[in-house]
Amino acid sequence: MALWSGRFQEQVGEFTQRFGASLPVDKKMYAEDIAGSLAHSAMLAQQGVISAQDAEAIAEGLAAIRGEIEAEEFPFDINNEDIHMSIESVLTQRIGDAGKRLHTGRSRNDQVATDTRLYMKKRAGQLMEANLELRRTLLEKAQQHPDAVMPGYTHLQHAQPVLFSHHLMAYTWMLARDFERLAAARKAADANPLGAAALAGTTYPLDRFATTQALGFARPIPNSLDAVSDRDFLLDLIYACSVSCLHLSRLCEELILWSSSEFGFVTMADSYSTGSSIMPQKKNSDFAELIRGKSGRVVGDLMALMMTLKSLPLAYNKDLQEDKEGAMDAADTLEDCYRCAAGMVATMTVNGGAMMAQAKKGYMAATDVADYLAKKGLPFRQAHEAVGHLVLLCEQRGCGLEDLTLEDFQNESPLFEADIAGCLDLPVIVAARTTYGGTGHEAVKVQMAEAQQQLESDAAAL
Amino acid sequence: MALWSGRFQEQVGEFTQRFGASLPVDKKMYAEDIAGSLAHSAMLAQQGVISAQDAEAIAEGLAAIRGEIEAEEFPFDINNEDIHMSIESVLTQRIGDAGKRLHTGRSRNDQVATDTRLYMKKRAGQLMEANLELRRTLLEKAQQHPDAVMPGYTHLQHAQPVLFSHHLMAYTWMLARDFERLAAARKAADANPLGAAALAGTTYPLDRFATTQALGFARPIPNSLDAVSDRDFLLDLIYACSVSCLHLSRLCEELILWSSSEFGFVTMADSYSTGSSIMPQKKNSDFAELIRGKSGRVVGDLMALMMTLKSLPLAYNKDLQEDKEGAMDAADTLEDCYRCAAGMVATMTVNGGAMMAQAKKGYMAATDVADYLAKKGLPFRQAHEAVGHLVLLCEQRGCGLEDLTLEDFQNESPLFEADIAGCLDLPVIVAARTTYGGTGHEAVKVQMAEAQQQLESDAAAL
Amino acid sequence: MALWSGRFQEQVGEFTQRFGASLPVDKKMYAEDIAGSLAHSAMLAQQGVISAQDAEAIAEGLAAIRGEIEAEEFPFDINNEDIHMSIESVLTQRIGDAGKRLHTGRSRNDQVATDTRLYMKKRAGQLMEANLELRRTLLEKAQQHPDAVMPGYTHLQHAQPVLFSHHLMAYTWMLARDFERLAAARKAADANPLGAAALAGTTYPLDRFATTQALGFARPIPNSLDAVSDRDFLLDLIYACSVSCLHLSRLCEELILWSSSEFGFVTMADSYSTGSSIMPQKKNSDFAELIRGKSGRVVGDLMALMMTLKSLPLAYNKDLQEDKEGAMDAADTLEDCYRCAAGMVATMTVNGGAMMAQAKKGYMAATDVADYLAKKGLPFRQAHEAVGHLVLLCEQRGCGLEDLTLEDFQNESPLFEADIAGCLDLPVIVAARTTYGGTGHEAVKVQMAEAQQQLESDAAAL
Amino acid sequence: MALWSGRFQEQVGEFTQRFGASLPVDKKMYAEDIAGSLAHSAMLAQQGVISAQDAEAIAEGLAAIRGEIEAEEFPFDINNEDIHMSIESVLTQRIGDAGKRLHTGRSRNDQVATDTRLYMKKRAGQLMEANLELRRTLLEKAQQHPDAVMPGYTHLQHAQPVLFSHHLMAYTWMLARDFERLAAARKAADANPLGAAALAGTTYPLDRFATTQALGFARPIPNSLDAVSDRDFLLDLIYACSVSCLHLSRLCEELILWSSSEFGFVTMADSYSTGSSIMPQKKNSDFAELIRGKSGRVVGDLMALMMTLKSLPLAYNKDLQEDKEGAMDAADTLEDCYRCAAGMVATMTVNGGAMMAQAKKGYMAATDVADYLAKKGLPFRQAHEAVGHLVLLCEQRGCGLEDLTLEDFQNESPLFEADIAGCLDLPVIVAARTTYGGTGHEAVKVQMAEAQQQLESDAAAL
Repeated sequence: MALWSGRFQEQVGEFTQRFGASLPVDKKMYAEDIAGSLAHSAMLAQQGVISAQDAEAIAEGLAAIRGEIEAEEFPFDINNEDIHMSIESVLTQRIGDAGKRLHTGRSRNDQVATDTRLYMKKRAGQLMEANLELRRTLLEKAQQHPDAVMPGYTHLQHAQPVLFSHHLMAYTWMLARDFERLAAARKAADANPLGAAALAGTTYPLDRFATTQALGFARPIPNSLDAVSDRDFLLDLIYACSVSCLHLSRLCEELILWSSSEFGFVTMADSYSTGSSIMPQKKNSDFAELIRGKSGRVVGDLMALMMTLKSLPLAYNKDLQEDKEGAMDAADTLEDCYRCAAGMVATMTVNGGAMMAQAKKGYMAATDVADYLAKKGLPFRQAHEAVGHLVLLCEQRGCGLEDLTLEDFQNESPLFEADIAGCLDLPVIVAARTTYGGTGHEAVKVQMAEAQQQLESDAAAL
Repeated sequence: MALWSGRFQEQVGEFTQRFGASLPVDKKMYAEDIAGSLAHSAMLAQQGVISAQDAEAIAEGLAAIRGEIEAEEFPFDINNEDIHMSIESVLTQRIGDAGKRLHTGRSRNDQVATDTRLYMKKRAGQLMEANLELRRTLLEKAQQHPDAVMPGYTHLQHAQPVLFSHHLMAYTWMLARDFERLAAARKAADANPLGAAALAGTTYPLDRFATTQALGFARPIPNSLDAVSDRDFLLDLIYACSVSCLHLSRLCEELILWSSSEFGFVTMADSYSTGSSIMPQKKNSDFAELIRGKSGRVVGDLMALMMTLKSLPLAYNKDLQEDKEGAMDAADTLEDCYRCAAGMVATMTVNGGAMMAQAKKGYMAATDVADYLAKKGLPFRQAHEAVGHLVLLCEQRGCGLEDLTLEDFQNESPLFEADIAGCLDLPVIVAARTTYGGTGHEAVKVQMAEAQQQLESDAAAL
Repeated sequence: MALWSGRFQEQVGEFTQRFGASLPVDKKMYAEDIAGSLAHSAMLAQQGVISAQDAEAIAEGLAAIRGEIEAEEFPFDINNEDIHMSIESVLTQRIGDAGKRLHTGRSRNDQVATDTRLYMKKRAGQLMEANLELRRTLLEKAQQHPDAVMPGYTHLQHAQPVLFSHHLMAYTWMLARDFERLAAARKAADANPLGAAALAGTTYPLDRFATTQALGFARPIPNSLDAVSDRDFLLDLIYACSVSCLHLSRLCEELILWSSSEFGFVTMADSYSTGSSIMPQKKNSDFAELIRGKSGRVVGDLMALMMTLKSLPLAYNKDLQEDKEGAMDAADTLEDCYRCAAGMVATMTVNGGAMMAQAKKGYMAATDVADYLAKKGLPFRQAHEAVGHLVLLCEQRGCGLEDLTLEDFQNESPLFEADIAGCLDLPVIVAARTTYGGTGHEAVKVQMAEAQQQLESDAAAL
Repeated sequence: MALWSGRFQEQVGEFTQRFGASLPVDKKMYAEDIAGSLAHSAMLAQQGVISAQDAEAIAEGLAAIRGEIEAEEFPFDINNEDIHMSIESVLTQRIGDAGKRLHTGRSRNDQVATDTRLYMKKRAGQLMEANLELRRTLLEKAQQHPDAVMPGYTHLQHAQPVLFSHHLMAYTWMLARDFERLAAARKAADANPLGAAALAGTTYPLDRFATTQALGFARPIPNSLDAVSDRDFLLDLIYACSVSCLHLSRLCEELILWSSSEFGFVTMADSYSTGSSIMPQKKNSDFAELIRGKSGRVVGDLMALMMTLKSLPLAYNKDLQEDKEGAMDAADTLEDCYRCAAGMVATMTVNGGAMMAQAKKGYMAATDVADYLAKKGLPFRQAHEAVGHLVLLCEQRGCGLEDLTLEDFQNESPLFEADIAGCLDLPVIVAARTTYGGTGHEAVKVQMAEAQQQLESDAAAL
């Protein structure tokens, strides 16, 4: 063994202890571990497997330990490789035999699955709450700027004018879908593995429905092998986080573009900007970039767990110890990103003038001018061609469609009349898109009311 | 331009045409494209935007085209870069001006989103159906072998004996969760983007609720920008496929192990095995390996679309053309894998004798012997230690726990009595795990009934 | 079996045949398969394992088959599941016993590894060639615009002015690193597995060095198990393609930004743009978006193969059949992306005026003004602060630093003298960055010469 | 802002400070940061940009700070968001104006790139060293068991007998390729960005070749934009780690299989095994599973950075702050995995008897028996068929090929003579595979000598 250990300062025992330990990660789940143990021992007592006194001693001992952990006074020791052993060993030191009976009819395999599910249920709920807050912020910002007109883009080219509020609302719908995915992940976690023991169930008369109720789970898991090997609920949570991070990467890409000198549509608050130590004039949208960049991290967490799960035989394998860190990271990251995005959106200044100035470029009325002709009976292909000629004329003159005279229009087609002016005025063009889901002011109001309703029903489901 | 084109045989125009074309992929959606156009033109006529005669001409023209495509007689041309243009251009050649009016108030942006959603709804439903069939096959196989006892594994080491049927049932629950994910993906696709037009809605008086109903969508999408840029429903579908492929990779890993000379628990049917051209004795579980390997492909499809979506500004960008091929591949792959897995499981021979022979190794009764002492009042730690000594004795003698005499047992602890024999008999040990979800025969029967019920309610939801 | 096959139209045999077949993918390697067989049979004859006549019959038969495949006249049959069997079975039909002797001392395991390595060596070389062409195009474009000044960005904010040519040159260095990775992948493929047979070598007196030489491999693989199970060379190739696609995604992101109405720095040629069927004024940079989007696809190919390889025991497993499709796709995609990017860059119009107009915004001279003071002895922190005040003054007046009077400057610091004007002139600022690698004109010339030299030495290594 | 901050306990300033800070990650690079500053200030003095006294004060101040950090006495403050600011601000507090001059002609953009490259060069070298140690361990283990014969597997089915040493050697070649990838990553990092400043170079007369030499870099980076935005060297490192982790996942999969009751080929040392708190008989290969599972983590790190880099415009963006954590994690993980794998392999017991017992199953001599007939002139197809009959006969009798009589053989073909016995003896069969790279004892010796040579030349390249 000397062969390979020459360069290491750590002893083998120390190294394997550290390498195999999960304590640094799983101690975040201390509250859930204690809750699980309390439910288990109470049930054992009720079923006559341990005495009521033992259950009481356990309850008191665990309560004390929880207090110490929260006060940061608990003696964690890496030699107790995980949170379960850390707590149980101290408990047993303190209350003796009763502590030794806590693990009756239980294995670390079902214990860790129980803790993780409780913990992730909680985190999913917190993410749902943060999701709602970002949606509220977006909706409120949209409501504050009901009339700002900006260029609507396809292919990052000016396409048709849209309301800034309509554009912002698009993100509330993406986030509403993310809320559903988070809720699905929470539901996936909401099943009780306790009682599956190592993998096969036990010969003790456990009442799994009692612990299910005590821990607030929706149902016990119906197969003991599946109970200790299933990590789908973690995949579901990281996946929900991943998709939401992708949505935030799109929002932040736009905030970064809009904050640029070239666009100038919004100005980030100083509290969400940073300067440069070398360039005195700089004001950078650092936080939007950070959120955009963090999408990689969360998708990486997803790929990591997927790869770890691939080809694993049943039931429990130590590979699964790698399950929690990525899920915790994904949840922590998304929560921070939600909060930061909400802060940025709430505090940014919207420059309606700059939006309108850009909206006037790019002949964005062209579709409506073509529709004008089409509505007067000209086949759309011909209308499209006629407007193409007008756009060319504008390019030659270096002007916009609104700068052409009625004569210019009529030279192209006698169908044009004075009311063509209405097709050239951007606010009018926007307002004319009245169908459900369109960018017209009235349609957007309907949309906002729907989004508000959805927010409320989602909040009620928390 | 000569600079970089020297080595290519293709002309620039040919090259960009091929590089930009999506026809080879999206022509699978011909039926959905035609359905969308029919619904759109009928609605246009109803709203008075086009005439009833035009709508009729369109309907007849499209019906003829659908027939030709199904008969493989339709003149596809790569110069019509996608399925939408391919159909529309031929339609217009045939019916003239009416064909030119089909696209009124519509853009390819909302058209392709509509087609893709219809197509993926259909595919998700077909996957749900194939999922049910694999679950039925597993359940039936489990029911055919109610008494086969095999080693239960943790860390691929013999842990406690379990019923083969219990082990197989674990996969039905994984697959039941996959069904839910597929259903969620189908629901995500079930919203109508038609009427969003390019990105902003239109000025035509479209009735989006009418097309929603005609196409069987659950609801219209409430934001036109979101309607043309959302691809979450594809992520959800590929994600559902990915997780299910991971589950199949675990099942196939086990089938491969079980088919090995060392395990010998099952024998694959000849129709699901292959030989070797060089080694006359070989019989390989090729298909299980292929399914296991294909998990990579589907997770790759997920990663691909996630990366493509990262940082995309609104609304439509051509990057999104890359969305369909991976989703189609994921669905096709999973469907084949479901079918192949069902075939393998249905036709494999279960070697109960080999399972039992292995189950006898590894002292798998040890937990029960310790529990025996614990139930007689010995603190579990001491019980655990006593059984450790007995295992050591067996290792020295090269025998099993069941080969020890009562005297051997009593030398270790006077609490042992003749009834210890019941703790050494594997079927008895298994049967004693009676709690909900455990491996005991009765508990497994309860589980099977639940699985059957779930199957039926899932089938009803198709 | 009826259970699960009810809904399928395909028979089991047909289904498994199709599901297990690799022919649609591996027939691209026909030339390499034939080359490998020719080398093997020639060596067998030389070693006396088969007769010279047999070897000659084989050589003639294979030459004829190659001709037929290239003329698209070869009778492929899916029942010959792969390219190896397809060729061998037809050969044997035609030349009888000699054909049956071709496979002596060979297995499909080493045969497929040989074919794949030959094929990927070729593809890597072709990618290296296409890489050189894109680099040449970028260099030439940079040389065509030696004086265009654009805003240099950090955080997408104006930072300091840079030469457009300097910015474009950054991509040539990224691509030069990609060339190295492609070369490493080619080198990884350049080892001969032939002679490893199924997994263990053979008892025939094969001369592996002879086939190595005949096939142009650098060396024989020194371990037969590794020879049939190693797929690192495919990972290396897909990885090289992935990183290069990421680089192209960055280039295309910039081309898309630059083509926008807001930036206006470049105009894409019509042959690399598309219009809109609904919006008459649109001109979209579709191809840049498509390339950007395809980065996902190639990274997905990498993830796919990594997952497939995870946890595979030695030696050959059928999972490995999934290895080729992704690698071929990655190579094909990158080659098309290289070509398309070269076409776009070669044909785009550079709008120096628009670049300069933007460069004047954002106080990009601020760093140089601060450096001016620092060089006169003011501690940099104080200099930074003084310039901050001047920027504030400009913002209040709505002007640029170059619009301030000397008096304005001197009010802030008496160190300012008339020569401060030199720090406000963008071309002068740019030119002053003379250190190696900087954006000054002379430094960029040095850089271009180095890039040219690298291009030549890389071309020599093809 | 109250809107979204209601539920948070942190203040906005605290939150953004924490969210934006990289200190917890980048403080690992303190030594490199100090080295970079020392080289920069020495060069500034040499070029006359700062005085010799200032450079000396800086050098002394930094040396003191390095000492304090190593003694864990340095006052880190999260408000100094990164390691660069942490050190510089304390330095300036202590030495005044000289400290303020350290950053002359430098930006955090080139500073962080320099630090990261120095750090990763070091880590790559350490990984190369750990790689060598694992290879040495494998080689030594193989040398210790030169004659152990085990079943060679394809499709996890017995294929042909191989030497255990040959099988183990396969991993040394995989790891040798990993060494090359690590070396390539080290070389990629080995280029100096210092002097690129923010993005454009500077107007100070920096001598970039001097800092290149002082810091031990191979060359300065020739483009300042590329210098601050390139993160390829991190991708290369994480990629190298990923592939090596995949190799270890394959090795560990085999160690887990081999440690199972069914295989029994090896026994893990107690120091690399764990027991069960509930099952007294268990001995688990936890560490092999942990390594196998960690492959997901490292591949996740790769996917994370790839996604973060996708679509990033030049030059520096804050997204890049996400670059280091994953690379550090990948390197730390692989180093631990190498060490743990070496420990496991070095200490495991090899059970040659169990290997041989399994090798006798599965008719692994079949190929050689067929070759026997083929060498006597029977066309191989007929030989293959004849042996198929013999295998069938064995299956009927429940015996092995070696249990058949000469008469049995001759009933199948008159070509069989007494010397067929030599084709049935596993060690003889193994030994007969004498070609380069084969499993014959002599061939393996040649292979080991080559591997030893490679080890030595790789060690020389460290």
